[in-house]
Amino acid sequence: MNQIIFLDYAGVAVFAATGALAASRKQLDIIGFLFFAGLTGIGGGTVRDLILGAPVFWVQNHDYLVVCAAMAIAVYFSAHLIESRYKLLLWLDAIGLAAYCVFGAWKGLVMTGSALVAVVMGMLTATFGGILRDQIAGEPSVLMRPEIYVTAAMAGAVTFTVLDIAGLPLLLSAAPAFAVAFIIRGGAIWFGWSFPPYKSRPGRRPEDIP
Amino acid sequence: MNQIIFLDYAGVAVFAATGALAASRKQLDIIGFLFFAGLTGIGGGTVRDLILGAPVFWVQNHDYLVVCAAMAIAVYFSAHLIESRYKLLLWLDAIGLAAYCVFGAWKGLVMTGSALVAVVMGMLTATFGGILRDQIAGEPSVLMRPEIYVTAAMAGAVTFTVLDIAGLPLLLSAAPAFAVAFIIRGGAIWFGWSFPPYKSRPGRRPEDIP
Amino acid sequence: MNQIIFLDYAGVAVFAATGALAASRKQLDIIGFLFFAGLTGIGGGTVRDLILGAPVFWVQNHDYLVVCAAMAIAVYFSAHLIESRYKLLLWLDAIGLAAYCVFGAWKGLVMTGSALVAVVMGMLTATFGGILRDQIAGEPSVLMRPEIYVTAAMAGAVTFTVLDIAGLPLLLSAAPAFAVAFIIRGGAIWFGWSFPPYKSRPGRRPEDIP
Repeated sequence: MNQIIFLDYAGVAVFAATGALAASRKQLDIIGFLFFAGLTGIGGGTVRDLILGAPVFWVQNHDYLVVCAAMAIAVYFSAHLIESRYKLLLWLDAIGLAAYCVFGAWKGLVMTGSALVAVVMGMLTATFGGILRDQIAGEPSVLMRPEIYVTAAMAGAVTFTVLDIAGLPLLLSAAPAFAVAFIIRGGAIWFGWSFPPYKSRPGRRPEDIP
Repeated sequence: MNQIIFLDYAGVAVFAATGALAASRKQLDIIGFLFFAGLTGIGGGTVRDLILGAPVFWVQNHDYLVVCAAMAIAVYFSAHLIESRYKLLLWLDAIGLAAYCVFGAWKGLVMTGSALVAVVMGMLTATFGGILRDQIAGEPSVLMRPEIYVTAAMAGAVTFTVLDIAGLPLLLSAAPAFAVAFIIRGGAIWFGWSFPPYKSRPGRRPEDIP
Repeated sequence: MNQIIFLDYAGVAVFAATGALAASRKQLDIIGFLFFAGLTGIGGGTVRDLILGAPVFWVQNHDYLVVCAAMAIAVYFSAHLIESRYKLLLWLDAIGLAAYCVFGAWKGLVMTGSALVAVVMGMLTATFGGILRDQIAGEPSVLMRPEIYVTAAMAGAVTFTVLDIAGLPLLLSAAPAFAVAFIIRGGAIWFGWSFPPYKSRPGRRPEDIP
């Protein structure tokens, strides 16, 4: 367990940074940075713990709140140096997604023993912080972009779950799973990877439907 | 209990289908269909179970996840055959609303014994999956449309709660309550039923208020 | 405890009124008023209780639901008399924020003994009802406005937590904390108080980033 806890801190820290970057894009004040860093950093894990019936992780251990606050302050004083905050946000979000899909799957597997629940928990933990961030900041949701997003979280969670059930040591399950998720999401950002949709057409606006 | 569990599966299945239809309207890939089917299918019941302090239903029984995945795949390969996905979405949403307002009220009544909590739980279970779906997909919320929506869920939940407390067998409480909710919501979709608002005027935009 | 429970009812009542005012601005029917009054009145406290692992307050005590319903009905029949519903909404929201940041901090401190968790809980309880209201009603979030908002909740929660840990009686911790939060938020509404942002620039739209 001591090894994988690193993924948890890494996920919280980079998601907190993406929240602070969203606050910077919206020109909020320092407290707005703290709010969005907290919301994004601990949002996904909070939903995960509530659904698993586990005590919420940051209520048990305040270090996570301190990590979020530190990231918020760091971004607040450095965001003006960054050429494209949105690109940095996307790349940090990719790291957070990779860390959290593995950690969420691990926690789901430990607490329920079910591979299916583990995969769902990995996906949910990896995506919900970003969903909350985008919804409340009024940004277009990362989830709705054409490039692959949820797929990367799912691939990472599946990889970890399969390797862990196959009996590999924790580190040898977690590291490849993190790599799979990050490479898929990173490739999607860099090369615009996407699945060809099947006989797809856009939805009409409700008021245009006769 | 064995009889009413059918409503639970029915609600999950049709809400999952509405989520997949929303994914289709947004031209997402297959994993996006799975995500939205899961979010909408199990979202309302998850919030219900968290508030009631019950173990989350799909963590206990994975069949619900399998139902969501099956609906996502079925919609993925058939959505191009459907003339108006939004109309189908509205009608399936009406079935899900009717099934879930009854099941939510039943679970609320069983777990708390309070009629008021039962009605609120019925309304909440019936509406939250759709709220999550519309919020995250960036669709205009079904809730904000002029036709009757929440009222149908409330009427179904009240009907079930009154009949159940009156001592009727489960099936004779659940069936009329389902019918009441579906007829009210169906009439609202078909005939555009709405309440006349009382001395109503639209809100101004915040920036236009002196 | 008996004294501070007044803040809880006050917070629920005024937040419920802001939800009903949002429903009025959107020209919803009476059931829509009940829905938004409930969502806003009990939303923040529900999230607080779930995270703290406490039984959800309104499931334990139905009076809160009755308070929400009463406010919804009162606003439904009086909203046409109000010159600017949005301004009233902002001022009632300020009262609710002040009441709830103190009550949330108190409950967080009682249940966890941690000052940091208490402050976060105060901020979260004070802001989440309004976030849910604005998100689901499709209003621009109060949180994203340039004037000070979250800061007021944080100041009130910090004031209460410091005074309470310093050993003051409950009333002498709660009253100044309420005043601090309300004066800061009220000043922000009235005088447009805001923090100067640090080397700030607006975010570009994702599609404009090369």
